[in-house]
This record gives sequence, structure tokens and C-alpha cells, in this order.
Amino acid sequence: MPTSLITIAQQTQVAARSAALLSNAARNAAIESIAQALEDSTEAIFAANIEDCKAALGGGISPALYSRLKLGEVKLYPAIEGVRSVAQLPDPLGQVQLHRELDEGLILRRITCPVGVLGVIFESRPDAVMQIASLAIKSGNGVILKGGKEALNTCQAIVAAIHQGLAKTEVSPDLIQLLTTRAETMELLQLDQYVNLIIPRGSNDLVKFVQQNTQIPVLGHADGICHIYLDRAADLEKAIQITVDAKTQYPAACNAVETLLVHQDLLETHLPAVLQALRGQSVILKGDDRVQACGRDIKPADESDWCTEYSDLVLSIRVVESLEEAIDHINRYGSRHTDAIVTEDASTAAQFLAQVNSAGVYHNCSTRFADGFRYGFGAEVGISTQMLPPRGPVGLEGLVTYKYQLVGNGHLATTYSGTGAKAFTHRDLPTPHSGSSI
Amino acid sequence: MPTSLITIAQQTQVAARSAALLSNAARNAAIESIAQALEDSTEAIFAANIEDCKAALGGGISPALYSRLKLGEVKLYPAIEGVRSVAQLPDPLGQVQLHRELDEGLILRRITCPVGVLGVIFESRPDAVMQIASLAIKSGNGVILKGGKEALNTCQAIVAAIHQGLAKTEVSPDLIQLLTTRAETMELLQLDQYVNLIIPRGSNDLVKFVQQNTQIPVLGHADGICHIYLDRAADLEKAIQITVDAKTQYPAACNAVETLLVHQDLLETHLPAVLQALRGQSVILKGDDRVQACGRDIKPADESDWCTEYSDLVLSIRVVESLEEAIDHINRYGSRHTDAIVTEDASTAAQFLAQVNSAGVYHNCSTRFADGFRYGFGAEVGISTQMLPPRGPVGLEGLVTYKYQLVGNGHLATTYSGTGAKAFTHRDLPTPHSGSSI
Repeated sequence: MPTSLITIAQQTQVAARSAALLSNAARNAAIESIAQALEDSTEAIFAANIEDCKAALGGGISPALYSRLKLGEVKLYPAIEGVRSVAQLPDPLGQVQLHRELDEGLILRRITCPVGVLGVIFESRPDAVMQIASLAIKSGNGVILKGGKEALNTCQAIVAAIHQGLAKTEVSPDLIQLLTTRAETMELLQLDQYVNLIIPRGSNDLVKFVQQNTQIPVLGHADGICHIYLDRAADLEKAIQITVDAKTQYPAACNAVETLLVHQDLLETHLPAVLQALRGQSVILKGDDRVQACGRDIKPADESDWCTEYSDLVLSIRVVESLEEAIDHINRYGSRHTDAIVTEDASTAAQFLAQVNSAGVYHNCSTRFADGFRYGFGAEVGISTQMLPPRGPVGLEGLVTYKYQLVGNGHLATTYSGTGAKAFTHRDLPTPHSGSSI
Repeated sequence: MPTSLITIAQQTQVAARSAALLSNAARNAAIESIAQALEDSTEAIFAANIEDCKAALGGGISPALYSRLKLGEVKLYPAIEGVRSVAQLPDPLGQVQLHRELDEGLILRRITCPVGVLGVIFESRPDAVMQIASLAIKSGNGVILKGGKEALNTCQAIVAAIHQGLAKTEVSPDLIQLLTTRAETMELLQLDQYVNLIIPRGSNDLVKFVQQNTQIPVLGHADGICHIYLDRAADLEKAIQITVDAKTQYPAACNAVETLLVHQDLLETHLPAVLQALRGQSVILKGDDRVQACGRDIKPADESDWCTEYSDLVLSIRVVESLEEAIDHINRYGSRHTDAIVTEDASTAAQFLAQVNSAGVYHNCSTRFADGFRYGFGAEVGISTQMLPPRGPVGLEGLVTYKYQLVGNGHLATTYSGTGAKAFTHRDLPTPHSGSSI
């Protein structure tokens, strides 16, 4: 690659600055144009993917990675439709969040705007390129993509099609850039002058590596250690079904349950039936002393289990004496992702929802609902487990920020200070509502 | 101090968890109670402050620091009134930002909640303790305060009064903690398990030190390098008045202008009068070659000036050939704080407001309006110059986060996936409006 990464980042920044000025219609037209170009390039994309798959098989890729890498018709066509669906989302830009007269003729607006340049680091899945590109265009951001080397040919074919599509539109092809060498990942993480947000998509190890090696804000989460607490007032049938669903419906997901907390009053009434249902789904059970007394198949669980995301058909189980102990356990060992209580007691549920410090706090439903599409966001750019916003599943909202625009007519601060200071009016004005874009 | 910092942090966390459950009325009652206790303790506070001031004078304190340290009646009584005014602010907690039916009986709410425990590091000004304590109580957060050693006696007297006040209320006195030794600052910055947000209040150097020495999110800004761009279509009178106001009304403020950018077409028409007005206010002028040609008193400005926050009656001035060059300069050398354009051309102004990447982008008004009180937030916990929210002047909003609460009745993810999957309804429900708390 002849141009340096800084040059690429500068080009992206320039393209992003122009994109920030475009109307929603112009950005949507660009998205439609890349969908068209991708459709016109499917043969080249398939050919490139076959090449990547051959090389990967030769290199002894794991079956799971291989299935993510392979991009057949059943994945490519829906992905192109996914690109089109991004154009249908509400415009995330230009939303007026605050509209206030500070004084006559001095009008403050807080308005959403692009973040700038995104750095997206992903593993294997080349279809992510299409989704990220469309979300970046929709939100007026530039994006520098860094994929795994195993998907290089496929990613290049996809980006070539995207650039062809953009060449016919008001959006500069420079808005979407693809990096290709491993060295560039570290360089990208150091570009805090040019890159405003890093989004890692992949394993917990990838996310941790990114978080520990950059000063740029990172959107994402490493661990997903989710809990279900079966309260003393839990309904038996809900306890069984929610636990089984949250553990077995897709055990590799970050929102699958890893630890079940059971109130001691349920040891004889509820726990045996819950364990039996889990055994029926081939879940490997681990538990503390009292849980182990419920069956010889139950392996011992210790401190390290409370901190483990199994991502598999394994569940650790602990008996607690009270709601407070359950909340303490979750706040101590959890990852602030998603935690649920099963109870018929409304005030117990309210305390759980208020005091568990997680992005998602659920009552009588499965932790597996923690997902941007299930929340109705139309897209998901990541799930954040930090305390500060954005938190939980993040849609397009995570790709925009806001600025304060103040428009006056020669207004001076001195008018409003000292003796004879004029008072501010601070009168809220109507904000145009354009539908929730969360 | 017999208890370790971790013990203190744990106590604060426990107290904060209880505070998160309290009603707005209970939190307001606690604020009123500390206001009362502070009034009852004014003699002790004055005595402690006199002791601090004596020691500081003996140690050769600078006049500026001394004036911040000294807490006479003219500062203490308004500060106590400031405590009471925090109780009048809208409740920042429990605001429903999203209310959506995912399916029948499965209801999603995004609801504001406290951040948890704040670490506030401040210099000299002991009156900050009262303001921070009241804001923390209002927002249901615990706070660990670390003040400068020069104000130690005063801070201890104030916190003693606050604890007396809280002892009579539902808020635990453990919610507000005061650290007193220098070593504890570094320890505090490492407590990412217990402290969720750090707020440094003081010099740029303090903020930079904090930012570079913690993994905890930091609310605040180091530099405030604000610009005014006088466009070719600038009104002369506005150009003069806005520049003079932004530079001279309070030059030490972070929102004072540091660099004036002037379109080359104004060199003869506008610049001389602007310079003359600045000279009339004893502003030291620095400029590039073309600006220097306007007067022998104008010192040369170079690259380092564009990066300098003078915080004094000094202004650097640069001639630009175009709006684009002005935007480039600001995005390159600015600190993303607040930047203004003076122009009568609406489309030029629109481009400036869209393309300058600052928290505040202003048209025909002084940069000095960038302030939480002037924006009508009723409080300011800091001004953030990061790209991501919260940005700009931050009120109580900066001390809260949100969580997603999902309430079902035995809802399972498996119902909504695979063949025969049920569709989500994703129907937005009314959100109770309780007034803007921004």
C-alpha cells in the first residue's frame, strides 16, 4: 500500500466532513447505490470468497471460523437487503434534542451530528463490511475497516463494489477505507487525532486487546456474564422456562445466562425441577455445596466460576439467602451486561431493577432479549457494558454525538453580568419530533 | 485515617445503592437538611477557614489561589443558597427516555439512574464541596472528594456539617466522603472497581494529570482554545463587540477567545477597527505577517500561538483566505470547546456550524456564553471537550446514566426465532414528560 495510514485517515476525515453536510435523501441514495453495486458484483465477491475459503482450509481454520468466513448466496443476498434496510431507518442526524431561547434573539439548539471517523476492527465475517459501511453512510461518518487476514480477498471485493457504488453519488468513496495488514491494527489504535471511536467486533480477547491499547473511546464489551435470580416468590413454570431459554437457546451469545442464583427457600420446591429441565437440554451443571446436594452429576463451582463466561452449555448455580445477597453477587461478579429476576413479588422486582448496576435489568423474561434488533433499533453497532451512555444494545444512536449551536445577533456576555445585568429568559421552544431513532 | 481507601469506597458504594432507591422528595429533604446544618455551622467553618488562610499566607500562596481559598460571608451564604437551589432542579432520575412494547406484555423502558460513585478532585476552592455534595445527593450518587491540602480544615468543617445534616435524613452520611492526603489522589484514580466517574476541577495541568492516570471515565476538559472567525460578510460593529467581549469580559475563563481568524477581504475594512478596540482594552496583540502590517505593536505569532490558551489579555490573530481555511484551522488547532463565526451570510454560517467539530458552534455571539448556567441547566458539573456525549457544558445530566428495564410475564427468546417465529410489535408507548433536565 503506497499511502500511509495517516494519509488514509486524513482522506477519510475530509470525506466525513463533506458527508456531514449531506441530506438524509443524499445519504440514502448512496446506500441504494452501493446495494446496487454489490448486486452487480456478486460474482466477483463469490470468487474472492472461494479463494479465501480455500486458503483458510489449507491453513487449518476452525469450523466455527470457517462458517463465519464463508459467504454463499444465503448470506450475501440478505446482507445486501440489510444494506437497503439501513436507508429506511430514521435519520440519526440533525435531531434537535434541546431548543431554548436564552434571551430574545439568542437561540440554543442541541443537535445530533456525526462522530467523525470510526475505526472498526472485526474478525472473519466479511459480511460485516456491508453492514458497517451502510451504517457509516447513514450516520455521516467515515470508517476505516480492519478485517482479519483470512477474509482479505472477500473484503477487498466488497469494498471495491462499495467504492463503485459511491462513485456515482454525493458521498465520496474515501468515506469507506479498508486496511489489510496486521501491523495497521496497532497503528489505527494510536490515531486519536483522526479516529473518534473504535468498534471492535469479535472475540472477548479482541475486545480486551483493543480496550487496553488505545486512548480512543471504544464501543463494545468484553465479557457477558449474565445472571438469573430465582427469587423466593418465583413462579415455578417461569423459573424453568426462562432459565432453559436463557441458557440453551444460543449458548455462545453474550446475553446467554452463565450463573443461576437461587433463593434458599426454593431448594426443595423449585430447584430440582429446574435442574431436571436443564439436564434434559444436556446442560453441564456446576454448583455450590447446597446445589451439589441435589444430584451427583453436579460438579463443584467456586469463585472462578462466578467470573466465567462459559459461552457453552454449562451453568454455575449458587444458593443465596436473600435478594440483597443476589444483588451483591451480581454487582460483584457480573459484567454489567444483562441480569434477570424471576419473581411474582412486585416490590422485590422493583428493588432488583433499581439496584442491579447492569445495562439490562429484566423481570420475568429471558436475558436473551438484550439485542438491538429485538429492542426495535433496526440496527446494532454493539452492546456496551460501561456505566456511562451509550449503554446496552446500541443502534445508530451510538454513531452520532451532538453539538450546541448558539445563534445570536451580536449578543455579548457582558450584557448578562455585573450590575444592571439582563436576565436570561431560558424559555424552551418546541422541538420538532421525528420519531425515536434509538 | 484508620480505614483504608477501599473501605471508604465500599461504604460510599453501599450508601449510593440505597440513595438510588430514594424518591426525589427524600433527596430534596436531605439537601435542605444539609443547608440547615451548614447555616448552623458557619462559625466553625469560618474559624477553620481562617486557620487555612493563615497557614497559606505563611506558605507564600499566590494571590489568585488565596482569593479562591478565602471563604468569607459573601461566599459562604450564597453557597448555602446554591445548595438549596439544587433541590429546585428537575429530578434527573427515573426519566423514561424510551417506552416500547416489544410484544404483548413485554415492555421495555430506558430509564435514567445514578452513575454510582463519583471521584471529585479539586483545588483550593472549599465552597466547591457544598455544590458537589448537593449535586451528588440530587442525582443519587455517592461522592469521594479530594481537595487541596491548603483547604483541608475548611473542607473538613464543611463535610462535618454535611454529615450532621444527613444524619437526620434517609440519605446515609457515608454518601459524601472526604479524602485528605496527597497519596490518596493516585489511589483514588486506580479504584475503577468502585468509582464510576472522575471529575477534576482545577487547572489544565490537574485535568491532564487525571486523564493520563486513570482508566475511569473523566468528565472535564484540559484546554479551552476558542476561536472567532470574522467572515468576509461580517458586520463591523458585531465583529468589534463580539471579539472584545469574548477576549476581555473574563480572560481567565476557558470560553474566552484565544485566536481570531480574519478573512483576507477584511484586512482594510474591518481589522483596523477591531485591533483599535482591543488596544483600548489593553489586549496584547500577536499576529501573522499580514496582521503585523497593521501596527508596530503587534508581536509575531507562530504555530505555537495557535496551540496556546493564554487565559490572559493576549490574542493571536491570523488571516485566512476562505471559510474552509478557517474551519481547517479551528479543527486542527482548537480544543473542540467553543468557536464562533461573525457573518451576515446565512449559508456561510450554516457550513461553519456543521463542519466545525466543537462542542459549541456559535453564530454572531460571544464564545463566553458556553456555560451550564447560561444554557439554563441550573448547574454545571463540567465542560466536556470530548467528541462523544456528554459534550459541552454538562449539568446534572452528566451525573446520571440509564439502564434498560425489560418486564415480561415469562417471555422467552425462542418464541421469536426460527420457523414459526412470532413477530415483535415494537410499538412506542407514551413517555411521561417531566420537563427537560438537561
